[in-house]
Amino acid sequence: MNRQELVQLIRDRKSYLCIGLDTDIQKIPKHLLSHPDPLFAFNKAIIDATKDLCVAYKINTAFYECQGIRGWESLQRTAEYIPKDIFTIADAKRGDIGNTSSYYAKTFFDTYGFDSVTVAPYMGRDSVEPFLGFQDKWAIVLGLTSNAGSGDFQQQKLASGEFLYENVLKTTASWGTPENMMFVIGATQASSVAEIRKIVPDHFFLVPGVGAQGGSLKEISEKGLNKDVGLLVNASRAVIYAGNDERFAEDARAAAEAYQAEMAQYL
Amino acid sequence: MNRQELVQLIRDRKSYLCIGLDTDIQKIPKHLLSHPDPLFAFNKAIIDATKDLCVAYKINTAFYECQGIRGWESLQRTAEYIPKDIFTIADAKRGDIGNTSSYYAKTFFDTYGFDSVTVAPYMGRDSVEPFLGFQDKWAIVLGLTSNAGSGDFQQQKLASGEFLYENVLKTTASWGTPENMMFVIGATQASSVAEIRKIVPDHFFLVPGVGAQGGSLKEISEKGLNKDVGLLVNASRAVIYAGNDERFAEDARAAAEAYQAEMAQYL
Repeated sequence: MNRQELVQLIRDRKSYLCIGLDTDIQKIPKHLLSHPDPLFAFNKAIIDATKDLCVAYKINTAFYECQGIRGWESLQRTAEYIPKDIFTIADAKRGDIGNTSSYYAKTFFDTYGFDSVTVAPYMGRDSVEPFLGFQDKWAIVLGLTSNAGSGDFQQQKLASGEFLYENVLKTTASWGTPENMMFVIGATQASSVAEIRKIVPDHFFLVPGVGAQGGSLKEISEKGLNKDVGLLVNASRAVIYAGNDERFAEDARAAAEAYQAEMAQYL
Repeated sequence: MNRQELVQLIRDRKSYLCIGLDTDIQKIPKHLLSHPDPLFAFNKAIIDATKDLCVAYKINTAFYECQGIRGWESLQRTAEYIPKDIFTIADAKRGDIGNTSSYYAKTFFDTYGFDSVTVAPYMGRDSVEPFLGFQDKWAIVLGLTSNAGSGDFQQQKLASGEFLYENVLKTTASWGTPENMMFVIGATQASSVAEIRKIVPDHFFLVPGVGAQGGSLKEISEKGLNKDVGLLVNASRAVIYAGNDERFAEDARAAAEAYQAEMAQYL
């Protein structure tokens, strides 16, 4: 999906909601466990209940990988089930030397057909560039993440006076364009977002950390929206585990509706 | 495998060679492509031919993931086939917020039974710690990598005067011990290894970059060996693709023998 299509989708739905399918076999309603593919059964119900309210689904690969090969089957079924007009994110945080990163790019763009994949920047240019050579596909580079550990290295001051994450944003932005690169900026980092927008005014930000992690949708929207919207705000646990019984999909829809209604006000 | 067992294995074999099973479907000998699982058939032959010469096998997940689910089947068969007295490394370069990293740790330690997994440090403490709580299992944290892109961020000077990678080594070392943490230090960075040894004198280093990437085994050994050896030097392409016909396994053995013989001199 290209940028123009993504922006149009957001305008049409009055939503920049991304739903994170962090589907944990230990957290899904018990009645699904008798299904031959419980993770997919859960995801299918969530997608059916929310697909008109969000513009993106984000699949965090960790939850599927830990189930072994049947987890990858669930992931593949889910990726194939998501309607083609919705943006898909493989939240895989990959990155390796150039020769190897190109295989990760093939994995998520070609083998599983995702629109985008999250990429860890520590290994530098040749680890990121292989994700940038695919038509209408995106690298979503970790910038300033939502977790406590973001303070350990991302917020180290460099000799130049800038924070490491500022240097990462500026430098990696020069390797791609706002048409093939986004950045992960945690909602818990809202106080820094106005400054971040000065560094990368045009790029989309994938914003995790609303909901279970405590970030404010209002604050991140006030500081992060740009002329092309420029935000995909992700909620995972707050939506998919809104309920925990046979009505879980309706409960997820209600949670997604609340986010969408709030987003419509900010657009 | 614990540290004492690993050191004993190295002493017994007079080898600190790790063989990287970066098995690429496009590079393996053509006669294997008719096998029901060509990647495993190749790995099995390489393991059979080299298992008395090396002390570790490193599986880079990218080469398997890009083959979809059958790639994970090849990976699992390979992991199960490696003799139990040899150290195993999932070169997966994972890392996510704490809740999610714990699923990656389960994936590689529990689901696939690896002894260790490579971990990207950019997301900080809670992204690394979940890999440290498993008995006799190891996190191998990216320190100073072998690729050109290591100059982009790892070698940024911090306001404190140290390089980012030095801060990463010092800080992450404080989260674990030399019994559950190693560092990736590229062989192409040999000129920095004496300084790195001052920061982390006791830790094992996993050293890629010998062979196809041009690093010197002699130089990295002179500067990196410590009282418990402290090195696992990896060769991937230089061993596994030493030959490309029906004698590929013998050719791989000859390449591994040359490395082992050189290592025996340095021990």
